[in-house]
Amino acid sequence: MGKKRVMVPVEQVDLSTVKYEQESIQAPHLTGFLFRFFVRIVEAPLIGPSIISILKKSNRVDEMLRNTAIPEEPMFKPEYPPQEKEPSVVILDEDGRPEDRVEAALNCLPNYDPAACWGNSSFPFQYWKIRDYAYAYRSGKVTPSMVAENIISVIEEISKKRPHEPLLISFDAEEVRKQASASTHRFEAGNPLSILDGIFMAIKDDIDCYPHQSKGATTWMHEVRTVKEDAVCVSRLRSCGVIFVGKANMHELGMGTTGNNPNYGTTRNPHAPDRYTGGSSSGPAAIVASGLCAAALGTDGGGSVRIPSSLCGVVGLKSTYGRTDMKGSLCDSGTVEIIGPIASTVEDAMLVYAAMLGSSLATKIRMRPSPPCLPNLSSYDDSNTLGSLRLGKYTTWFNDVHSTEISDKCEDALNLLSKYHGCETIEIVVPELQEMRTAHVVSIGSECIASLNPDCLDGKGKRLTCDTRTNLALFRSFSAGDYVAAQCIRRRLMHYHMEIFKKVDVIVTPTTGMTAPKIPPSALKSGETDIPVTGYLMRFVITANLLGFPAITVPVGYDKEGLPIGLQLIGRPWGEATILRLASAVEKLCWETKKKPVQYYDVLRPN
Amino acid sequence: MGKKRVMVPVEQVDLSTVKYEQESIQAPHLTGFLFRFFVRIVEAPLIGPSIISILKKSNRVDEMLRNTAIPEEPMFKPEYPPQEKEPSVVILDEDGRPEDRVEAALNCLPNYDPAACWGNSSFPFQYWKIRDYAYAYRSGKVTPSMVAENIISVIEEISKKRPHEPLLISFDAEEVRKQASASTHRFEAGNPLSILDGIFMAIKDDIDCYPHQSKGATTWMHEVRTVKEDAVCVSRLRSCGVIFVGKANMHELGMGTTGNNPNYGTTRNPHAPDRYTGGSSSGPAAIVASGLCAAALGTDGGGSVRIPSSLCGVVGLKSTYGRTDMKGSLCDSGTVEIIGPIASTVEDAMLVYAAMLGSSLATKIRMRPSPPCLPNLSSYDDSNTLGSLRLGKYTTWFNDVHSTEISDKCEDALNLLSKYHGCETIEIVVPELQEMRTAHVVSIGSECIASLNPDCLDGKGKRLTCDTRTNLALFRSFSAGDYVAAQCIRRRLMHYHMEIFKKVDVIVTPTTGMTAPKIPPSALKSGETDIPVTGYLMRFVITANLLGFPAITVPVGYDKEGLPIGLQLIGRPWGEATILRLASAVEKLCWETKKKPVQYYDVLRPN
Repeated sequence: MGKKRVMVPVEQVDLSTVKYEQESIQAPHLTGFLFRFFVRIVEAPLIGPSIISILKKSNRVDEMLRNTAIPEEPMFKPEYPPQEKEPSVVILDEDGRPEDRVEAALNCLPNYDPAACWGNSSFPFQYWKIRDYAYAYRSGKVTPSMVAENIISVIEEISKKRPHEPLLISFDAEEVRKQASASTHRFEAGNPLSILDGIFMAIKDDIDCYPHQSKGATTWMHEVRTVKEDAVCVSRLRSCGVIFVGKANMHELGMGTTGNNPNYGTTRNPHAPDRYTGGSSSGPAAIVASGLCAAALGTDGGGSVRIPSSLCGVVGLKSTYGRTDMKGSLCDSGTVEIIGPIASTVEDAMLVYAAMLGSSLATKIRMRPSPPCLPNLSSYDDSNTLGSLRLGKYTTWFNDVHSTEISDKCEDALNLLSKYHGCETIEIVVPELQEMRTAHVVSIGSECIASLNPDCLDGKGKRLTCDTRTNLALFRSFSAGDYVAAQCIRRRLMHYHMEIFKKVDVIVTPTTGMTAPKIPPSALKSGETDIPVTGYLMRFVITANLLGFPAITVPVGYDKEGLPIGLQLIGRPWGEATILRLASAVEKLCWETKKKPVQYYDVLRPN
Repeated sequence: MGKKRVMVPVEQVDLSTVKYEQESIQAPHLTGFLFRFFVRIVEAPLIGPSIISILKKSNRVDEMLRNTAIPEEPMFKPEYPPQEKEPSVVILDEDGRPEDRVEAALNCLPNYDPAACWGNSSFPFQYWKIRDYAYAYRSGKVTPSMVAENIISVIEEISKKRPHEPLLISFDAEEVRKQASASTHRFEAGNPLSILDGIFMAIKDDIDCYPHQSKGATTWMHEVRTVKEDAVCVSRLRSCGVIFVGKANMHELGMGTTGNNPNYGTTRNPHAPDRYTGGSSSGPAAIVASGLCAAALGTDGGGSVRIPSSLCGVVGLKSTYGRTDMKGSLCDSGTVEIIGPIASTVEDAMLVYAAMLGSSLATKIRMRPSPPCLPNLSSYDDSNTLGSLRLGKYTTWFNDVHSTEISDKCEDALNLLSKYHGCETIEIVVPELQEMRTAHVVSIGSECIASLNPDCLDGKGKRLTCDTRTNLALFRSFSAGDYVAAQCIRRRLMHYHMEIFKKVDVIVTPTTGMTAPKIPPSALKSGETDIPVTGYLMRFVITANLLGFPAITVPVGYDKEGLPIGLQLIGRPWGEATILRLASAVEKLCWETKKKPVQYYDVLRPN
């Protein structure tokens, strides 16, 4: 029951009257025994649904989804009108060979002399790039097998730590040695497969990478789902010569933003080992930030690539919905997820992205994607193009962060873009942010529960963590009508954003509303639910998920505790090239501030 | 809880092992006081959900949607690869003027001399066609105003009957006179707008037709939703000169297949006034079958155009999902509904269809429809094209009807098509029909509840009929996960059907599994729930709704009680031209059997 609210048709909304609504999520912070007790209550008949109902009521969920007449028809998946070509880009052939795309991507990069860097140990800290590895291998200074041994010894060292804090939850040293040896032989024969040959990567545990099983960080997924081959995007990387070190740790089933993992141990933030990496792609972000791998793959359905990338001080790319083939991932049928690269630099993210991209046939039929493009960073075009980019900023939202250090650092980056490239920042308004959050959680939650239901009802539900079980109890409470209403909200938000993208080329926000949160020791064993933290971490990321836009996070500095801060750039549909170009410029402008993480391993040239 | 079932990926299903599962729906037949009592129970907390749960369990709903792992990703709306052009068709410009499309449609029709028919009263019964009206108006024998008076007097006569059995639930004689007078003036001035000028049509009460309110046959919809203009397709017809007699009766909110209506009275079948018309477009079908209007518009989300057309012995066209703009209808945001014409002949359905068609912008972006086409029936091409058509028939399904008279009559029509045109019938198999039914009811039910929730929760729910309230209680029980799972089933069924359409051009079935059912007198006041009857009536229609295919019903004869039997032709996506061509051929072959309905009014040339 409840009074009917009526939304004005989206075209008639007067943006000048929109007020920014500060998020105020009502939910208890629980860890340890209390959390385990709470889960039992929430799963109990009658009392459980009542508690969920109260939580939803205090967050106006039913009011938005059941008591509100939304005049728009549902938009079940992102739908875009045909998009204009981005300026000064190189088009990639998504149906061609991954090796050819990587070659094309390499040709987009600015000049760089790895030898100069290699020879100079007094350089300020920077991560080894894919081009550094390639130089080392091609010049014969190092072989992939040598690097493999360095990585293996670090991984084995980390595995001895108590409590566990693994980067990988599936690791097989012999399997790594085998791949590295094959790569080493290719270099010896003078036949590397591509610039990615011999590059070590970690794959998030919800993406298939044969012969590992995909557990999604659960204790049982491999019992009901057998991996027989690589996911499509992994096989594309493999054909470029990438060496896979194993399956990276993650928040169970991707259902959390901290990376807390009571099943296998919680990955630590390389910049502050008493803090979370962020999630859900905790392992992928940490393994890149710690220097062990040049790149990793994560999945991003609610910021899961961008949040940990931001908190760990690396680059994370969420491509347009449908740009990557999801076949062979646990979240292969959702409407908000993509698989995206995490790397220490924008150029490495570009190289990996070029190799792995390519839409599924179903996506091609439904979405008719614009061809994938990369920015041409090697030419004079770059600076000309940068100057014409208009950046949209919703200042009250931008500033709604846990500490002003975050918004200040992001603001600094914008000022540098303005000063050195002439990028104009334009004030925008994004209405209905609270509705957007609700529509997102209903979408991702419902799609998740649909695929988990058969196993959960078959007894596996009890073998999930408290955090996952709490989430599932909430997701189960969503009705089919709620789901449809959420899709009507999706259409409204799409309208607002497509209007915004008539005035600006990129929307800029901090990536997260807070830097890496501390890990309460009591949260290690049974997990944790801390909705306000989730709110801060997800504050800016979900636009790109609900609406399918490409987005990237790029480090712009550190707070006074030395924790990384990321700037997020959200692009037009299929507009990866523009945000990559801008991210590359930001990276260059913020380069000097680069700090070496506390947990850093130089596996290419160990001391 | 429940044991997990796993579906084989759709490409790997071995069709030779598919067994036809007879439908066996478990639910009580209720009317009168018992029904009213049942509704109170079903809406009660705790006990209501338990009853719904038992009903769903006995029909395996949760088993299909929650305990089954479905490997396919969801398909939220029909998605089609680009389709080949149909042979020998005339392309219509969907963005052009409706009058021009009607002219193009007229040029597709075979020669016909209305004068011969007009002058010969010894002809066997046939309905007046639009070309007969046009002849009468143009030759000055009759004016639209004269016809208007005839119609008005019949409508007023019917309105005196007790119990009420209205064809229209919103009628304004002066409004009809005004339109007719304007049309009459156009003819006097020699400037009719199109062949549709002066043609009387009824509009189902869930489609806006200004200045009438759209109640969807409820008692309150007009209180919360004000009609200020015509629906898009109605305005297209109006610009062709169509005269609208009013808003036709229907099953409340379209949620039923009989046409039972305790709010305004139940429309009677013109062939047997003690029987249902079928629904939900009861009024539109009956008003055409009774001769009062040349055509009508209905909506079809679960056979609602085709079922009553079949039971009333007229032609009903369900076009491809997205072919017609739904703006201005109560079901403007579903994934299964279209607005379609009902007429006494295929050619009249074609003329109305040509005027009203045209996709919305959102559909154009998402579905990229093939251009609308009509069959060229005036040329020699027609017979050549007909001979090449392959008809797909799933015999066990085809024969699963209440009385073999139905399948026999439909079979006879196929034999005539084979004999006179050489159309080959090919045996096909359609797997997972039970899953298809479940996916359909979850889809339409959830979309319906999403749009009704705000009003129902605001108190209007109690002002709905028992039938609607029972349905809503069921729909409310569907979870968001159920909805997503249903969409995975939709993708499976789409695959099966697109494979079938590689082998055949049209799928043929009876339109309904039974002829017009009797109206229990006890059902007039409080309605009725009779799920087995619903099962028979919906048995063959929902394929075209869940998958968005075009389908048409064409009368092929009568059972021994004189009740009409319809043959359904289901076409490829955007393949309206092919089914119209075939329907026209069937109509010609079955022409001799035409019977005059018991309730028939000759408003063009009254005795």
